Amino acid sequence: MSTSIPAAWQPPGITPIDPQAEAAIRARIDGKAKPLGSLGQIEQLSVQLGQIRHPGEPRGDNAVLLVFAGDHGLTEEGVSQFPAAVTVAMVMTYLAGRACANAFAAATNVEIRVVDAGVAAELPKHAGLIDAKIRMGTANAAREPAMTRQQAIDALERGCQLAIAEIRDGADILALGEMGIGNTASSSLLLHRLAPAPLDDCIGVGAGQDSVGMAKKRAAIETAAARSDATAPLDVLAEFGGLEIAMMAGAILGAASQRRPVIVDGFISTVAALLAVRLEPAARGYCVFAHRSAERGHDLALAALQAKPLLDLGLRLGEGTGAILAVPLLRAGARLLTDVASLSDVLEGKL
Amino acid sequence: MSTSIPAAWQPPGITPIDPQAEAAIRARIDGKAKPLGSLGQIEQLSVQLGQIRHPGEPRGDNAVLLVFAGDHGLTEEGVSQFPAAVTVAMVMTYLAGRACANAFAAATNVEIRVVDAGVAAELPKHAGLIDAKIRMGTANAAREPAMTRQQAIDALERGCQLAIAEIRDGADILALGEMGIGNTASSSLLLHRLAPAPLDDCIGVGAGQDSVGMAKKRAAIETAAARSDATAPLDVLAEFGGLEIAMMAGAILGAASQRRPVIVDGFISTVAALLAVRLEPAARGYCVFAHRSAERGHDLALAALQAKPLLDLGLRLGEGTGAILAVPLLRAGARLLTDVASLSDVLEGKL
Repeated sequence: MSTSIPAAWQPPGITPIDPQAEAAIRARIDGKAKPLGSLGQIEQLSVQLGQIRHPGEPRGDNAVLLVFAGDHGLTEEGVSQFPAAVTVAMVMTYLAGRACANAFAAATNVEIRVVDAGVAAELPKHAGLIDAKIRMGTANAAREPAMTRQQAIDALERGCQLAIAEIRDGADILALGEMGIGNTASSSLLLHRLAPAPLDDCIGVGAGQDSVGMAKKRAAIETAAARSDATAPLDVLAEFGGLEIAMMAGAILGAASQRRPVIVDGFISTVAALLAVRLEPAARGYCVFAHRSAERGHDLALAALQAKPLLDLGLRLGEGTGAILAVPLLRAGARLLTDVASLSDVLEGKL
Repeated sequence: MSTSIPAAWQPPGITPIDPQAEAAIRARIDGKAKPLGSLGQIEQLSVQLGQIRHPGEPRGDNAVLLVFAGDHGLTEEGVSQFPAAVTVAMVMTYLAGRACANAFAAATNVEIRVVDAGVAAELPKHAGLIDAKIRMGTANAAREPAMTRQQAIDALERGCQLAIAEIRDGADILALGEMGIGNTASSSLLLHRLAPAPLDDCIGVGAGQDSVGMAKKRAAIETAAARSDATAPLDVLAEFGGLEIAMMAGAILGAASQRRPVIVDGFISTVAALLAVRLEPAARGYCVFAHRSAERGHDLALAALQAKPLLDLGLRLGEGTGAILAVPLLRAGARLLTDVASLSDVLEGKL
């Protein structure tokens, strides 16, 4: 990767989803063998999937979850009840196939790949692990920039390349997840600057915090926010992190550049989507929002993207668990367009 | 089948799900490698699935959708905008693999079988079609009982046997759906008597009705309600129909008798579940409610069963389309219990 420091980053070329196609696709769905509008939100999803691939047809069989892992220097300030070492422990759990994301992926026939975006430890080589480490975790954003501008660009680029590679290998749908102790704190800072929204409204309990822990978390976030007044997307990312969030945003841009749907998970993933859309608004049309997380701030992030999620199950785990559970809905939406007979063919006995 | 007229029907023996097991299963889930409570409603589902199979383990790989089809004499009164012949046309569409239920089942790896519970036409033999026809559609409930008491019992029994046969053939999960022009009208009458609830609150647009159509539908339902003051479940069923609703209720009782979860779809299916639970309250613990339908009356039916559905996608199609979309959630809930490592094993590196 380049070591020169560019003034800006050029996202990949992204064609906005086709607004001209919407009416024709909706008319096709309206003509299917079912009462008009009777599949509710699945019909809207089907229209979006149709627009993404227009004039081709959407497919959903091959779905891949990329779980991006990274560590956060902010953990030095006690923003999480869990020690940073849990990031490594959970990466090892994914590789052993024993985490919630693995269980859900097995339940839905989704492939998982784990990406080391910036775990603060050397990880063993493993067929299921992609080494994309930019650095050994971010710096402590309460004291200094989380990463350099070049590292932010490298992480975006790498995420973009990884998504493109999965799609070239046959993925019809990309789902994104993350693991990184401390990453709700980074996400709160990004949301605050990118929505924008009042800082306090962007802060939640993350993986769980008592009142003492929440006071520490809030103080660290406020200190970080006071250190920099950045508002430009790339600057905000470099100031507050994290590496896995950067790489997810890059993966969204990469998926959009290849005209494939990308499923956004919960709070952190939605903040990554907001970052991607602020870098390249045309990416928005390729994003499908999986679920409404129980994490405070997620509603704000969704509102900033004018997004209505598919599921509302009180999930707040991350790892892409919610994104995985949305995969069958996308597959159903795709097959509504491609597999279902028209009502006129049914009534005329032309099957 | 017997031609004598029994005073009552004896449902199969059903053991209530084990309330003693709940705390132990919840403790196992709390010990998994994830923040406490972070999988929200999936955790509650996992507890229920654990209770159903306790002390065994839940499984979800083999899921079967039974779509019960039946015709309704009430269609003579103009309760539906669609002619009754659409029931046959849709059965042929399922058999051709071209309906929404087929598309969704293909998207989620669910097997479909179509059951002729009482379609008012001779259907061709087909490997995917189970002939369980009780009669050629119900009688017009606005004028006379929809079926005899013995036919109601036969339909319940047959549904029960079909569910038991699927489970003996390896089904881990049963999902139920229906097709029957006019069956929201029957369901409104059943809900009114079995919840009980004010009749008008139980009536909705079904597959779609304009104001003239709704006036006809409401008048027919009111005429039927005025004809009989039945409130006992078997009497209500015989008075108002339908054959597919009876068979679904029987299937729920059959699945419960074999200690397997059964996924209830939308308005009509939930009314069938209410009928099953009124016949045998112990069946309630085996029911999983897939989604909140857009059909008026569904909330009342859910409330009568103290049920909180998993999905809220504005579906109102029937056919089991919502039940199918809930299958991956049950599979995920089962695998949460069986596949995911404990947090202590993760932190101690014991994977």
